[in-house]
Parts: sequence; C-alpha cells; structure tokens
Amino acid sequence: MLNVAILGASGYTGAELLRLLLNHPKVAIRALTAERHAGKPFAEVFPQFAMLDLPDLQKIDTVDWQSIDFAFCALPHGTTQPIIAGLPQHVRVVDLSADFRLTSAALYEAVYGQPHQQPDLLAEAVYGLSEIERDAIAKARLVANPGCYPTGAQLPLIPLLEQGLVETNSIVIDSKSGATGAGRSPKEGLLFAEVADGIHAYGIGTHRHGPEIDQGLSRAAGQDMCVRFTPHLMPMSRGILSTIYVTIKPGVDLADLRSALNGRYAGEPFVHVLADGQAPQTRHVRGTNHVLISLHADRNPGQAILVSAEDNLVKGASGQAIQNMNIMMGFEETLGLKLTAQFP
Amino acid sequence: MLNVAILGASGYTGAELLRLLLNHPKVAIRALTAERHAGKPFAEVFPQFAMLDLPDLQKIDTVDWQSIDFAFCALPHGTTQPIIAGLPQHVRVVDLSADFRLTSAALYEAVYGQPHQQPDLLAEAVYGLSEIERDAIAKARLVANPGCYPTGAQLPLIPLLEQGLVETNSIVIDSKSGATGAGRSPKEGLLFAEVADGIHAYGIGTHRHGPEIDQGLSRAAGQDMCVRFTPHLMPMSRGILSTIYVTIKPGVDLADLRSALNGRYAGEPFVHVLADGQAPQTRHVRGTNHVLISLHADRNPGQAILVSAEDNLVKGASGQAIQNMNIMMGFEETLGLKLTAQFP
Amino acid sequence: MLNVAILGASGYTGAELLRLLLNHPKVAIRALTAERHAGKPFAEVFPQFAMLDLPDLQKIDTVDWQSIDFAFCALPHGTTQPIIAGLPQHVRVVDLSADFRLTSAALYEAVYGQPHQQPDLLAEAVYGLSEIERDAIAKARLVANPGCYPTGAQLPLIPLLEQGLVETNSIVIDSKSGATGAGRSPKEGLLFAEVADGIHAYGIGTHRHGPEIDQGLSRAAGQDMCVRFTPHLMPMSRGILSTIYVTIKPGVDLADLRSALNGRYAGEPFVHVLADGQAPQTRHVRGTNHVLISLHADRNPGQAILVSAEDNLVKGASGQAIQNMNIMMGFEETLGLKLTAQFP
Amino acid sequence: MLNVAILGASGYTGAELLRLLLNHPKVAIRALTAERHAGKPFAEVFPQFAMLDLPDLQKIDTVDWQSIDFAFCALPHGTTQPIIAGLPQHVRVVDLSADFRLTSAALYEAVYGQPHQQPDLLAEAVYGLSEIERDAIAKARLVANPGCYPTGAQLPLIPLLEQGLVETNSIVIDSKSGATGAGRSPKEGLLFAEVADGIHAYGIGTHRHGPEIDQGLSRAAGQDMCVRFTPHLMPMSRGILSTIYVTIKPGVDLADLRSALNGRYAGEPFVHVLADGQAPQTRHVRGTNHVLISLHADRNPGQAILVSAEDNLVKGASGQAIQNMNIMMGFEETLGLKLTAQFP
Repeated sequence: MLNVAILGASGYTGAELLRLLLNHPKVAIRALTAERHAGKPFAEVFPQFAMLDLPDLQKIDTVDWQSIDFAFCALPHGTTQPIIAGLPQHVRVVDLSADFRLTSAALYEAVYGQPHQQPDLLAEAVYGLSEIERDAIAKARLVANPGCYPTGAQLPLIPLLEQGLVETNSIVIDSKSGATGAGRSPKEGLLFAEVADGIHAYGIGTHRHGPEIDQGLSRAAGQDMCVRFTPHLMPMSRGILSTIYVTIKPGVDLADLRSALNGRYAGEPFVHVLADGQAPQTRHVRGTNHVLISLHADRNPGQAILVSAEDNLVKGASGQAIQNMNIMMGFEETLGLKLTAQFP
Repeated sequence: MLNVAILGASGYTGAELLRLLLNHPKVAIRALTAERHAGKPFAEVFPQFAMLDLPDLQKIDTVDWQSIDFAFCALPHGTTQPIIAGLPQHVRVVDLSADFRLTSAALYEAVYGQPHQQPDLLAEAVYGLSEIERDAIAKARLVANPGCYPTGAQLPLIPLLEQGLVETNSIVIDSKSGATGAGRSPKEGLLFAEVADGIHAYGIGTHRHGPEIDQGLSRAAGQDMCVRFTPHLMPMSRGILSTIYVTIKPGVDLADLRSALNGRYAGEPFVHVLADGQAPQTRHVRGTNHVLISLHADRNPGQAILVSAEDNLVKGASGQAIQNMNIMMGFEETLGLKLTAQFP
Repeated sequence: MLNVAILGASGYTGAELLRLLLNHPKVAIRALTAERHAGKPFAEVFPQFAMLDLPDLQKIDTVDWQSIDFAFCALPHGTTQPIIAGLPQHVRVVDLSADFRLTSAALYEAVYGQPHQQPDLLAEAVYGLSEIERDAIAKARLVANPGCYPTGAQLPLIPLLEQGLVETNSIVIDSKSGATGAGRSPKEGLLFAEVADGIHAYGIGTHRHGPEIDQGLSRAAGQDMCVRFTPHLMPMSRGILSTIYVTIKPGVDLADLRSALNGRYAGEPFVHVLADGQAPQTRHVRGTNHVLISLHADRNPGQAILVSAEDNLVKGASGQAIQNMNIMMGFEETLGLKLTAQFP
Repeated sequence: MLNVAILGASGYTGAELLRLLLNHPKVAIRALTAERHAGKPFAEVFPQFAMLDLPDLQKIDTVDWQSIDFAFCALPHGTTQPIIAGLPQHVRVVDLSADFRLTSAALYEAVYGQPHQQPDLLAEAVYGLSEIERDAIAKARLVANPGCYPTGAQLPLIPLLEQGLVETNSIVIDSKSGATGAGRSPKEGLLFAEVADGIHAYGIGTHRHGPEIDQGLSRAAGQDMCVRFTPHLMPMSRGILSTIYVTIKPGVDLADLRSALNGRYAGEPFVHVLADGQAPQTRHVRGTNHVLISLHADRNPGQAILVSAEDNLVKGASGQAIQNMNIMMGFEETLGLKLTAQFP
C-alpha cells in the first residue's frame, strides 16, 4: 500500500481526492492536514465522510513524514513553495496549486506578482497533463498538476498544433465553469444568491490560466502563441465546458483534424473524441476523470469549432492528480478512477 | 458472475442501476430493455455510458432468459404485473415499481384504481426495506423495492414504533424531493424553468406513498396507523429530506428514542444515526445508498423531531434494489455500493 | 413626496426596498447608508441600479435628518436599538430587524441573549403584520416589521385561531426558505456549491422565529401557544413555503376553516385564499408582496393541512415594510407593490 | 387606451407580455388566445395571474377584431404567416416569431426549410431591433421582433461595423442562454434534471439565428458577413450572455471602439455601455428590458472582447416587442418597461 498524505484537505479538491482515493486499492490515507481546522475530525468539515474511519486533521508540521510515501498538495497558490521544499526527498509529490505550472520563473513572477521562491524545484517540476507528458511524469518526483481551464483547453488543441493543422494566431477559447472552481473560501460573489440563475465573464483578457494555456500550446506548436481566453462563472457545482474556435490551415480539411484527434487519443482511457454530430455536456463527465471532445464544421469554410467537457474537480484537479500518481508509481492508470458520471 | 437484465433501462432508475452495477464485482450486465428505444445503443439515451461496452437496448420479448439469472424491473407502475408473471421461475427479481408493494390486493385496487392482475405473485412478494426485512428478502424470489418516500419515512420511525415509544396517531411526515423522483417523461410541470427557484407541495393528503408508509409503520406498531404525509417538489436533481414530528409517549424521554435508533441500526452499513446536535443534508448522501437520521428535542416537552436524508435514486430506488439483490444472492451487502457522496 | 432614508442599504432587503420604492409615485429616496461602503455609489454594491440616479452610500451619522420624513431600518439584529433611539421624533420608522418584534423585554432577552436596550421604544413599537394590525400601524411612529417565517406562518393560522376552529397544542409549521433569508454576509455554508442541489433543516427546535410566531398566534387564540416549527434552507434565491398541519376541533369541519379564511381575507389586495384543489408555489409570488394560502383535507378525518407561499424579501421583508409605510402615511396600500410574479 | 390582443398567450413570451403590459398605463388587454387551452381562465396556465381580472383564453378565430387595435403574435415559428395575413388592416402587429425576420424569402426558405407563404407581407415587415430601426418601426404596420440571440449579438457590434472599426471576417459570438429560450413545450432535454448543474452547446455551426445575425451585421457593415456563432443551454431560467471576439482594424484602437459604442447609445434608455473595467451579469438585467455592454482589451494587441447581457424574455422577446409597440404608437418608449432587475 502506498502511504499518502493530503495537505490542505479541507478544501473542495482535498475532499475530492479523498472521495476518489477511498476506492483506490493500493492507497492508504495516512495524514490529512488543514491548518485552521487542526485537531478536528475530517467529517466536521465534510460530513459526508462521517461513516468512514479517517485520520483527524492536523497541522502540516506535525505530519510524521517517515510514514508517508506520497503527498498531494492542495494548498492555496503561493503558499506551497516552501512547504514542498521542506519535504523529505523520499516523498513524491503532486502539487495541485499553480506554483510549479509555469516553467519560467520570470513568467511566474510576471503572472503571479511575486518572485518564485524555489527556482530549483521549479526547474525540476514536470507539468502534469497526463496524456501529453506521461513519460516525464513517470520519472518525476514533483508533478505540477495543470489548472482546471488549461486541461480542457489544451487537450483538444495539442494534437492539431503538433501536426500544424490550424493557425496559431486566431484561437479563441471560451470557457464556462462551475462554482467549485473558485474554492471554498467565503466571498460575497460566491454566495448562492449571487451565482444562481445567471452567468458572467471574469478575468477578461487577464486570467492567470491564459499564460499556462499558452505555454502548453506553444510547446505543441513549436512556436510562441497567445490565445484569446475568457472564463465564465455559472450556476453549477462542477464542470467546465470550453468552446474553441480555430482556423484551419490552407490545404487542410476537417477530416484531417478529426483524424489527428482520433489518432492522438486512441486507447486513452480518459480522453474521448465524440462521433461526428455529437456534442458533449458537462453532466456526462460529472464526478469522473473523463474529458469529452467534439469537433464541428463552422458555417465559414476553413474554420472549425471544438468543444471539450470536463469535471473541474476531477480531470481538472483531483482526478488528474491521482492519474498522475498512478503514472508515477507504475500503477494501472485508471485505479481509483473507474467511475461513470452521476447523471442526473 | 450473476447474469443480470435491467427491464426499463432508459429511465433514471435504469441508468442508476447501471452506474452502480458497473462497479459490482460479481455482476455481468446481459440485457437492457427499453421498448421505444429498442435497437439503439444504450449511450444514445444516456451518453455518459458511451465509453463502456454495453448490450444494445432491446424489447423485453427478445430477451434470452436462459442466459439471465436476475432481473431488475424498472418499468412504469401498472405495466409490471404481467411481465413479471411471464418470467421463467429461475429468474429472481427486484421490482422497482409500486406494483407489489402493498400486500393487500384490495388496498392496491383502492390506491391505484385498478384490480391487481397477479394476486398470487403479490402474496409471494416480499417488501424490500432491506434493514427491516432482511431475512425474508434473503429467501424471496420476488422483492418489491420500497418507494422513495416510504424508505426515508419508515426507517426513522420503525424502531420507535416497535418499542412503543411514540404516539401512533399524531405523526407528521413532511418530505422534500428532487425532480428525478418524478421520472424522465416530458411534462410541462417538470421543465427546468417550472421547477427552478421555487418549491411546492403536491398530492396533499392523497399521495400514493401514504398507504405504503402506513402499511410498514402499522406492522412495526402492531396496530393500524394513518400518518400525515406531504411531499414537495424542489429544485434539486436527487435527494429526499423528511422532517418527521412525533409525540413521545408518557414516561418515555428523548434518550429512549435515541437509544432505540442506535440499537436498531448499530452495525448497519447504510443507516447512520447522527450524533446529538447534528442534522443531515441530502447533499451528504448524494449518489450513495446511505440514509442519515437525526433526532432533536422540540421546544414542546414531550415532542420530538426526526430528520432523514436519502438519495431517492439510490437508497430510494436503485441502490436499495442492489442491496436487496446482494441479500438475495448471499453476497456481501455493500458490494457495488461503497461510494462516498459526491459533494460538492 | 415623502423623503425616505434606507439605513443598511447594502444588504438584500435594502436593495429590495429600492427596487420597489423606485416605482412608488409618492416617495423620493434621499439617503442610503452602509457603514463599510460609505462614499461609494450604490451601484457598486448592486450593479443593477447603475442606470439610475441615486444618492451615494453614506454613514448613518452623516445623514441630514431634517430632510428626511421616513426611515427604513434594514440593519443587523441587535445593532438597531440605539440607532432608532437616536432618530429625531419627526422621522417615522419601519424597522426590518428583529429588535422590536417581541413585545416583552424579558422574552427578547431570553431569545436574543442580551437585555433590550430601549424598553420604552419597545413598548411603543407596533408589530407590523399589515393585515392583522392595520389600525395600530396607521398610528404608529415605530413599526417592527415581522420576520419572514412568521409572516407566512401567522397569516393562515390567525383566522382559524381567532374563531377557535383548531386545536392550539398540536400545530406543526414546516417551512422551506430560499437562501436570501440568510443575508449577504459571506459564510461557507451559504456558498453556491454548499446550497445547490440539496436541502437541510436548521435551528431545529431552537429557531428564534418560533417565539415570534407563538406571540402572534397566542394573541389570536387568546391563550399561550407554543408551535412546532422547523425551518429549512433550500436552493432558491427567494421564497418561503410553509406547510402547516392542524387538528380541527370537534364539531368543526373543513368548510368552517375555509370560510374563516375567506372571510378574514376577502378584499385584501395581498393575501389570497386559493380555490379548493389548488396549491401554491413560491414561484407564483416571486418578486411580489402576495401571500397565497391553500387549505386541504388530510387523510385523517379531523385534521387539515394549510400551505402558504410568500417571497421572503417582499412580503417577508421589504414589501411588507412598504405596505406598512403606505398604511402609516395614509397612502393607497398597494402603491409601489403592484407587481405580478416574474415566472418563469 | 390601446386595445391589445396577445395571440399565443400560453407560452413564456405570452406570460411575459402580460406581466409587463399590466403596468402599461395606455394599454388594455382585450383578448388572449391559446388554441389548446381555449375556454380556460388564463390563470389556469399561469397561476401567478390569479388575482387579476383578465379575459379567458380563446381560439384565434373567435377574436372580435373590431375591438382590437394592436396584436402581439407569440405563435410558434412557421404558423404565423397565414394568421397575420388574415388580420384586418387596422390592426398593427408585432410578431415575435421568426417568420418575418429574414428579409429575403429565398434565405427564409434555405434556413427554415419551407417556402415563405406571404412574400408580400415579408417585404412590408420591418425588423424590430428598436435602437437601430426606430424610424422604420414608427411607420410600420408589421414589425418582426428580433430573435433573442440576435438582439444581444447585434447591439454591441453594429456601432463598430457602421464605422468600419473591426474586421468583418473573424467575429466570434459565443452565447449562453437560459432555458426559457427553448419554450414551454415538454421535451426530455428540457426537464429539470437534464438542464440542472451542467452546460452544453447546441446547433453548433447550424443555429438559425446565425443568418439573422449576419443579415443585421451585413447591413451595418455594408458588406456580406458570416459570423461564427455558438449558442449554449445552461441552468438559469432567463438571460443571455454573449461573449464577442473581434479583431480591430489597423490604425484603430480600443478607445475608438469605446467611443463608437458610447456615441451610438448615449441617451438610449435601455442600452448601457459599462465603464472601463466592469463586466455585465445576466442577473443585473433579469426581468428588465436593459442590455448591458462591456468592452475589454484582449491580451493580444489589436483584438478586443465585448460582452452583452440581456433577459431573453424581455429585451430578447416581450420587452422589445412592447418597446416597438411604444415606438409604433408614438408613446413614450419606456412605458411599461420601467423596471429594475430582480436581483437576487
């Protein structure tokens, strides 16, 4: 059994890690941390776990690291760097924060407004988009789990950019997210009555996931890219739908795009290219690690539309983190993740 | 492996049976029926199953019953009687409809407005409230799975009535249900815009689950009972919360009630009596077979309030059906049902 | 024109007062206060008012009271007493907090945990259940606007208790509220993902609106009463549905109850007794000052069920406050309140 | 008083016309039609109107047209043409269907799959985008009310295209709609449990509102255009948010775009260009005839993002229809429409 600690277990991604790991046959939960709630039973912050036998919440500095093999770090952005730096070398880590996602320390500082505190760790970290970086993930000690939006944005585009099938300068990614993407900290704008029965865009032209998306797509395309990306907050608990507008390169047609997607993801257990004429719903991946991708002709010849659906808490966070753990440990990649969507 | 057929697989309870059975280690899905959709892939009616290898939908009369050991019958109320009567004797059955729940054919006719067509089958059927009728269920060929409201209404009350701790003539059961309880048939009153952002009572004083509740409670109390029961439709997909008002008998106190509940359900894997001061939320059982029960003092001495939470599609339908199958087949009772609630 | 100040305008009841008063032909909004937001345009806290010309938010102690005739006080419970005591005598007041609702200072202290600071004002205050206390309201300088739950609970019961038609010792009031009833302060339990797709009871046996309901019903019945009352929080923005269980007195029948209700509310512009067979939905009063009441036979002879629907922000708060202002000022009672529900 | 008939009053746009017209000081409701519900009180199909005195529903062919001055036609697409052709000439009409929106009969046939039955009426009809076609609307006998998506898509773009500030060949319009946009006919895909807690795109590359948007933008730009347009269905009752991606022409900057928007809509009572840094929410126009428009710099120099918010049932349907009636009759344009959004 792999002995696992979850750092920052009182947030939504922490609870989701637990929900999934409890069905993982090779994992034992050994430590759960939450600084403000230290000493409490975990079920006090998430009552749905009351019927289970779980470690109490504790402070990070009280964890007995000799009994831990693997850590999931689900702490707030910016607080993670010294904590991971302080972990013993035998502990392998998937970090769900944004702290190690951008490979350039200079870009990190530009986007997050402060210098990176652990540039050596940053250089060592592997970007954890599982289907794309599987080999590097397998060998990594520290994996930076991708952001929720970047996961659903990159997976449909990378196969097209790798093969040079679409223009790099006119991509539009319009994403719609459920409210758990904003975390569990109480804020007026996240109250039920402020989120229900409406939608709005936020971070327009400035959201921090833009540079993360650019980084992955630029690598796939072999050239610098800057996409147009707009996130929206809407009244659902989980899920991200991304509608993606691309211009097809001259001499390429829609069938080439479909072929690139099908080829790239054939045999993938979690990424599914839908048949012609189908479109994904976030409901159809709710609670699962699946990503659904569809491809559509635009009314304008030479242009196409892609749609991707994911659960922001699973493939967009905790599920992909477990998938990465499975890859790192040489486990079957789907362990703990064999779920069908809870719909309705 | 137990070879299973699901009759009426295109409704919500059919899909939920599949979601759960796909994680059952001793079950193989052999047949899925849906009269109007016969010939289609199951994923055409529930796209979340598209990545799985499942039998196509077929008509009931095309099922090869020699290859089937066990059937879940999730057909509309009233249509089930001749179909179950026509099944070969080697097939054991859990029926999720209301057709075999009321043990008296006369009461069935009074409540459902038509004579029962299979009184012999009715006499044979066992009421499938798992925790209460476990021994009879184990031996049954035909189990009548309880209604969604009756499950959450009876479990908190039966221990109190068995021990004669509360008055039988003043029980009020006020229940609030999610929209899946009304099924998947398109009706104006179930459209999103008609259900969202509001609540209403329906079937006030006349709902058919009233007599079913009476039947179970009367048996526990050893005397005829008629409860006051009001169901409500509210904007959630799954879940029933029942708030239950009881009058404590003279000489009995709240601790006696708590003791009766704790004693009756100690060791039960799916029924949990919350600690003093806690109250259940439907969210905390969403997607699971758990029932949470809490007990509270009223402001009026001599009166108490109970609250129960269940998922109407799981413990209120498909989950309890699988629990019953496990009991009937001598499997571990929790197989296929070891899930933690998907919250948020 | 009546010159009006709204104290505590940055909460939901403040915004709702404004929404309604802007259509009131005899009111001019002269001051809007919000301590933490003083100096900001009102549209910064509620952007839907951006196209209107409104006073900026200010601190209470900067209001020029000589220019104000009437104040709505929408401040948090417990903070209101010294503020109202400090207002000049020419300003008439409707207070939407709980501070002046309980007529007994001793009961106030027992329920709210602190001595009442202004017992003289308390003695002077009139309870603002408009249809019941219309004459006293007309003459009052200070009206204590009823709580949201007590409004929907008392209106159906008072006519029955006044005429002695139902038993006083067995009334059950089961109420379901939308999330705005909990206010706009950020709390974890009110986040979208914590409220959506579920329901739970709270304050079971202890909610502070219980004694307020008792006070009004006791007065109607002419004897001390203590009802059983349970509030629930559910995923809607506005609305309260109360399902009320009563025992009919010997010699009385359902028609007598209906007759009492119809007689009491004939001609009332905002309280409507539905026809036999109909049941109210909160959606049908959304955004309006209407209360719908229905009456139903129970399966048990001698018992009945009432259902009431109101909008907690309108008849349960700001709308009734304006209705009371209209009564106090001798205006037509429906001014500013002639709205049909926004459904869907 | 203007004597008004509403044809097709049992749908959502019919109810919304009534809700608004009841506050219109110069309108009297004389006839309400609904073929399937003829003979019923209107409150039987929309109970929120029960407290009002309204004509019963009737069949269209029983309307006494001599007593009618003005008709709103809220019938299903395709059924409207013969009905409007049959109305007496003295009746002026706003048609809310799609039947008269496309000015070319050939295009109508291509998009709607059947020849237009009334090409002469089609030639006479004026497209009712109020702020753009005000002068023609004032003189029209028949106004074709715009589609819900086209309203929110055209208003932000027309000022930019009129002045030639943005490229015409790369516009992306990504729209998110509430469920009432799909009407009140019962369909499986519109049930609460199918719409709640999720989002999906539909009509990708094929939605019929695409050509309608093209028509209006082409006219503004003075050249043929074909935009990229994707609608989405999401869990809210009302509202459309459109996120619009444009490429700025060389030599033009963001300030020019802002200036064009501000100039075009200065003084408009219902179209509001937000200040720099603000973004609209559909909640802020809920129940009102307002459209909010914001303009944002993209991360890519030379590109910009616009967002518009509207209520699909008001400015996207019934509200704009009344605005058009006001224009046609020479009434003050805001009569019946002076509402502030119901938020929360």
